[in-house]
Amino acid sequence: MAGYDYDLAVIGSGPAGQGAAIQAAKLGKDVVIIERYPAVGGENVSTGGVSKTLREAVMHLTGYRERAIYGGSYAVKQNITLSDLLVRNQYVSQQHIHILRSQLSRNRVEFAAAEGSFIDRHTINLASDEGRVNRTITADKVVVAVGTDATHPPVVHADGKLILVGYQVMDINELPRTLVVVGAGAVGLEYCGTFAALGVKVTLIDRKNRLLPFMDEEVTDVLAYHLRQNGVTLRLNEAVFDIEYFLDERGNRVRVVLESNKQILTDAVLYCVGRTGSTAALNLEAAGLETDGRGRLAVDENYQTDVEGIYAAGGVIGFPDLASVSRMQGRSAARHMFNTPIDNYQDLMPYMIKTIPELAVVGKTEAELTDDGIPYEVGKANYQENVNSIVKGVDAGFLKLLFNIDTRELLGVHIVGEGAAEMVHIGQAVMAHRGKIDYFVDAVISHPTMAESYVTAALDGINRLGM
Amino acid sequence: MAGYDYDLAVIGSGPAGQGAAIQAAKLGKDVVIIERYPAVGGENVSTGGVSKTLREAVMHLTGYRERAIYGGSYAVKQNITLSDLLVRNQYVSQQHIHILRSQLSRNRVEFAAAEGSFIDRHTINLASDEGRVNRTITADKVVVAVGTDATHPPVVHADGKLILVGYQVMDINELPRTLVVVGAGAVGLEYCGTFAALGVKVTLIDRKNRLLPFMDEEVTDVLAYHLRQNGVTLRLNEAVFDIEYFLDERGNRVRVVLESNKQILTDAVLYCVGRTGSTAALNLEAAGLETDGRGRLAVDENYQTDVEGIYAAGGVIGFPDLASVSRMQGRSAARHMFNTPIDNYQDLMPYMIKTIPELAVVGKTEAELTDDGIPYEVGKANYQENVNSIVKGVDAGFLKLLFNIDTRELLGVHIVGEGAAEMVHIGQAVMAHRGKIDYFVDAVISHPTMAESYVTAALDGINRLGM
Repeated sequence: MAGYDYDLAVIGSGPAGQGAAIQAAKLGKDVVIIERYPAVGGENVSTGGVSKTLREAVMHLTGYRERAIYGGSYAVKQNITLSDLLVRNQYVSQQHIHILRSQLSRNRVEFAAAEGSFIDRHTINLASDEGRVNRTITADKVVVAVGTDATHPPVVHADGKLILVGYQVMDINELPRTLVVVGAGAVGLEYCGTFAALGVKVTLIDRKNRLLPFMDEEVTDVLAYHLRQNGVTLRLNEAVFDIEYFLDERGNRVRVVLESNKQILTDAVLYCVGRTGSTAALNLEAAGLETDGRGRLAVDENYQTDVEGIYAAGGVIGFPDLASVSRMQGRSAARHMFNTPIDNYQDLMPYMIKTIPELAVVGKTEAELTDDGIPYEVGKANYQENVNSIVKGVDAGFLKLLFNIDTRELLGVHIVGEGAAEMVHIGQAVMAHRGKIDYFVDAVISHPTMAESYVTAALDGINRLGM
Repeated sequence: MAGYDYDLAVIGSGPAGQGAAIQAAKLGKDVVIIERYPAVGGENVSTGGVSKTLREAVMHLTGYRERAIYGGSYAVKQNITLSDLLVRNQYVSQQHIHILRSQLSRNRVEFAAAEGSFIDRHTINLASDEGRVNRTITADKVVVAVGTDATHPPVVHADGKLILVGYQVMDINELPRTLVVVGAGAVGLEYCGTFAALGVKVTLIDRKNRLLPFMDEEVTDVLAYHLRQNGVTLRLNEAVFDIEYFLDERGNRVRVVLESNKQILTDAVLYCVGRTGSTAALNLEAAGLETDGRGRLAVDENYQTDVEGIYAAGGVIGFPDLASVSRMQGRSAARHMFNTPIDNYQDLMPYMIKTIPELAVVGKTEAELTDDGIPYEVGKANYQENVNSIVKGVDAGFLKLLFNIDTRELLGVHIVGEGAAEMVHIGQAVMAHRGKIDYFVDAVISHPTMAESYVTAALDGINRLGM
């Protein structure tokens, strides 16, 4: 170990940190993972997954999935309270922590519950018990995987009651009647769909002129359509100028003033714009590192920072800040630092948002293929044509396949609708093995399943070739 | 067309018939599909899918999926009646018929609502309006895809009230308190899980000494465990000797006498043993065909019968009588008869049963690999370790991967638990492209999803190799 206490120290135990630590341990290295929150997994486990857990609780309790069958006003439970929903979150986070702890211990990764900060590029101070206990460890390599914090609105600090940043949703006692969500990123959209399904009148504000501009436009159009169907007002191409408290007959409320001079009166504001790398306490300068204006670190294609031997992965390096991708980044960093080549599929990262309806995509968009000058064709299947969606009472959604006309290779999968997050992995597996559109026609796909949408879409695409 | 009215006549419009008709139409052939039931899709659409639709309604109304979170006694609706359930079935079958009709018409397949019977091997009589209208058509090729009928118990005719065969479940007015299900095939198991979830005391009787002996034993053990957890009594290695009516203070009831002399008193019996090919009215002799003792036709590897130019597909040729496989058989028959080679994956047919919990498998079992002398290893993931199952409140299930130790090729996927039917297609896509176990470790799989079980299972398997 060349005189170091550990081969690898990982700061942060979210998905990126876990990916790096477990990979290094599997390569036989001595690894410590440092986490300032009391539980493995970091803040993400107890708060970061809350939007997805809330969504599942809401989908169930509102009977959302069954509305096609039982009617639009059907609900499993009337007067849903937040405590109905948060019971589920508490349960989920406890189970999740348990799983993570056992994964780390099975892989013999040491866990240090402490705030880590650099003394030099190989030396880290571990402060625990609110700084009363300090000790120092050394490591040959370091991975910074501290994740991000919610950014507060620039004009006013989130009070956690009327003005909230993402995870504070857990602390509100009563459902607001009206809610303004600022920021149409993944988390903003997830909350937006969930609160709308609960009957809250939601207004979504985003600076961009369409939702998720990096995604297939047909997919985001369907998302916009369903958000509106659920009563969401979309205010795109708009930015927040000011947020003010005021008092009326309904009590303390909030006025959101847009740069266009529009004013929105609301019971609460949920601010989901941007996140800041949680690097403030790391004393990065001591290691020779510096961050951008939002606390983030720059890395090369191997996730190495400007300082040799120090890597960074996950939200702290920026987009996409998705758990699955962060884990892969941590894992790739660990393999690179210990000279173990990796066969990965970085160009085949599924991007998934669990809004209502959910979205999942992998591979190229039509816009990208057009830019690249690749001759492609489209095959599409609407959920209304899928027997299993009817059996399940799901009616909104489609699956779209893009494939090369000459080679028939599958190039992109774009899904919106229930089950998208799981189903995208079927297309991903075909693409990773350079499979063709014909696979879905030739394979036996079980009936009735949502997966049959691949068959319908493939047939549609092949038909368009005039075959 | 060499003097025939059609290139192909298909008798029966279930999945096998649809597969053959649409494939032939896509090859530019003139096709007629003959169906004796009033609606496209045949009996299967209105009755054959009832076990799966009932299951979905029951899963929702009983809150079964959420019991891990809300407790075992949680139910969305108390006193569930059959009409709650059958509303859903009616809706589903109407939608399904609509989809099928539009698929046939888009592909320009002619639909004849008539009872078909052979006059000779190229000539078919079409009787409609209860036999009052007859006309004759000729076709170069014929596919017999008439499916199967439920077999009545040999000792007593099913009265549709106390003694039922599968589809008659739709006609019962009131949930029985106790139910004996005879036959642990796919349909028997589906009903068994559904009625048990509704709180009916179910006894399942099967002649074999374990459930589904062709399946992975670990999978069927989990199924047996959960059926018992839901209050099902399994009577394996037992056969029905007699079924008798009797009257007691609860009214008209049934006594099932087993060959072992055991007697079971029950409110109702659901008989799900075997099915009979629906060939009685086809006048097969005129075409030179004959059936086995249960109305079924024998075919070669191209689904051709002993008579050249006459093919058969679907349940009428026997096991597995699954919609997905029947469709592939019909399609393969059509491609063979019109000399169009096919790239199919017949050794990779997923087998799925939507019991509670659901099962899905593809590829080899441990028993088969052992018999073949192939050195394999096992990777397993329990649902309790999967964050998305926790988010969804699903706690029962596992995913098991089998792979070749030397080549690391994926050889089998065995899943029991919610989502199995969809998830099996991810592994199937990898196997169809001769992918390796390592794929699941190297690919980015979205978080949180059930699909992450593939990653956990793959890591487990690779760990067992000591790597």
